[in-house]
Amino acid sequence: MKSVIRVEVPPQSYDIAIAPGSLDDIGVWMSRLKLGKKVLLVSNPAIFRRYGERAIGALKLVGYQVSHCTLPAGERYKTLKSIQKIHDAALQNRLERSSTMVALGGGVIGDMTGFAAATWLRGINVVQVPTSLLAMVDAAIGGKTGVNHPQGKNLIGAFHQPRFVLIDPHVLQTLPPRELRAGMAEVIKYGVIWDAELFAKLESTKRLDQRRYLDEELLSFILSCSCQAKADVVSQDEKEAGLRAILNYGHTIGHAVESLTGYKVVNHGEAVAIGMVAAGQIAVELQMWTSPEAERQKALIEKAGLPTQLPPGLDIDAIIDTLQTDKKVKDGKVRFILPTQIGEVTITDQVPADVIRQVLSDKL
Amino acid sequence: MKSVIRVEVPPQSYDIAIAPGSLDDIGVWMSRLKLGKKVLLVSNPAIFRRYGERAIGALKLVGYQVSHCTLPAGERYKTLKSIQKIHDAALQNRLERSSTMVALGGGVIGDMTGFAAATWLRGINVVQVPTSLLAMVDAAIGGKTGVNHPQGKNLIGAFHQPRFVLIDPHVLQTLPPRELRAGMAEVIKYGVIWDAELFAKLESTKRLDQRRYLDEELLSFILSCSCQAKADVVSQDEKEAGLRAILNYGHTIGHAVESLTGYKVVNHGEAVAIGMVAAGQIAVELQMWTSPEAERQKALIEKAGLPTQLPPGLDIDAIIDTLQTDKKVKDGKVRFILPTQIGEVTITDQVPADVIRQVLSDKL
Repeated sequence: MKSVIRVEVPPQSYDIAIAPGSLDDIGVWMSRLKLGKKVLLVSNPAIFRRYGERAIGALKLVGYQVSHCTLPAGERYKTLKSIQKIHDAALQNRLERSSTMVALGGGVIGDMTGFAAATWLRGINVVQVPTSLLAMVDAAIGGKTGVNHPQGKNLIGAFHQPRFVLIDPHVLQTLPPRELRAGMAEVIKYGVIWDAELFAKLESTKRLDQRRYLDEELLSFILSCSCQAKADVVSQDEKEAGLRAILNYGHTIGHAVESLTGYKVVNHGEAVAIGMVAAGQIAVELQMWTSPEAERQKALIEKAGLPTQLPPGLDIDAIIDTLQTDKKVKDGKVRFILPTQIGEVTITDQVPADVIRQVLSDKL
Repeated sequence: MKSVIRVEVPPQSYDIAIAPGSLDDIGVWMSRLKLGKKVLLVSNPAIFRRYGERAIGALKLVGYQVSHCTLPAGERYKTLKSIQKIHDAALQNRLERSSTMVALGGGVIGDMTGFAAATWLRGINVVQVPTSLLAMVDAAIGGKTGVNHPQGKNLIGAFHQPRFVLIDPHVLQTLPPRELRAGMAEVIKYGVIWDAELFAKLESTKRLDQRRYLDEELLSFILSCSCQAKADVVSQDEKEAGLRAILNYGHTIGHAVESLTGYKVVNHGEAVAIGMVAAGQIAVELQMWTSPEAERQKALIEKAGLPTQLPPGLDIDAIIDTLQTDKKVKDGKVRFILPTQIGEVTITDQVPADVIRQVLSDKL
């Protein structure tokens, strides 16, 4: 089953193609875009070993001149230093304004390649080929690119939309289970913020914690619904003037947890899972959401094998302080996305600090 | 005499205000824009000593919370490392998405502050307050921001339009004469590529090489014509899909000369002056431009006290090789902007390497 989803961001809208086995057709898909001849493929060593040659072969087949560079895997390498390495490769291979960087990898590779493309020659093409569930349903779509500042995640970055996103679900067969679960956190997020039908489907599935429990059809459904949700939101609000902020559901506290544990204890999806439980509980405390629905969310998160509690030893004052450095802060007020019912959320900066503190202390 | 020029770049068009003494009114000018309360003023130590407190005072007067950071002056500090320093100041002062960076300085400060703003929280506001003639008529307008790569000028960057450009011609009184002449190179450029009336006015002026020979009225005329030319071109082609490339007149060879001499021997304006003479000579060789008009250009450049010959000892093969790494290269072909008559240029990638070589060897 093949599906194509459009992201409407004039002047340069683009497609997300979800097609099993499509990695071997990447050249054909890209050739429709009439890009320049030069391609720089960016990946990490493990992904490159597994899929690099296939992708390069498929690109060369249609006439691209392909060079590549690999960067170490992991959030802690998502730095300006890595961007410089991509830039060095771009220079060495004499990339031009019409050239394209292809990001083959997870969210970290996608974010960095996107940012390197955004800032090379003041912006060249980027094509996203996500290989993790997290990147497929989230990072690869929507043009948010960037790296971490030593004191905060994604503080350095730019909006730079890809020219195309190619999703080959087959590559998920080799994704480590913990990575699959991390992606499932974002899938659940779309269920809570946008798509009650997706939420119900996930609830009716027996297990969500490993790839082998997800049949081909369910996986396609999950990918399509999630990408469609993201595309809908981004198409309505590309630069996060309003609506798009709802995609940060679970991310406000999630980012603080990731940052304070040095990106080592929990991964991004796990942090978002914890953040969603916290946001859900805050919404309940503020009487914006019913306790039974919050419980349903928590149960779904648990079924996906994701954490629902703060990692031990985390200082709650430190979390609250870290929230102040979040990109979402406006006039010193932290912005929260809170559920009002399954499939709907609201944006508010009116969450009292003591409610945050109480939820983090007692309810998590 | 006060003039306001509009740069039409939807969705966020902006004004260039040219107004003597306006540095003391910067807060009032900015308050019309309804920006967030926080401002980070970025400057270099010398400019900050001279104008920093006045600017900060004028900003505080209308209620802004102002912090500042200074970076060493000079093209060789235009690096990612300097950008990190601005980012650190942004973090320390908890700048938000609605906050503004104000660039108070020459082209280097403007380019870096613009790029730091483009990449902080995926893009915050920037206001340009250029203090050199070069920055006033060129760098501050049009949204080109960036830093140098060790192997090439401005290879790292982004398009990020300012929200406002404030030009106070009074600050030119303290500009070193060599800097004034550098700016005059860009003014002459506008005469050649866009505005024959400006060219004629410059020709009819006795001396152009020092501030004291330019009366208030002539200076206003020069600034208005130059900013209008730049605004016209940028409004028609913001992202350099076509027309905007004409602003690179003199820059193709100019950049190579700057780069090969390590940004130490000639400054940007001097390099552009040399590049314009070279481009003019290439146009004459290709029978696209008349020799008398090329001579008029050369005479004007000389009158402005600018160089018309390559610095001694420069290797011509190295220049030709460096041209290949220029951002303007497309499919391996170097793009030149060549005059066809005073006030008009054309864009071509059909300049044979041997013509470039011959002009650089014999005619320069």
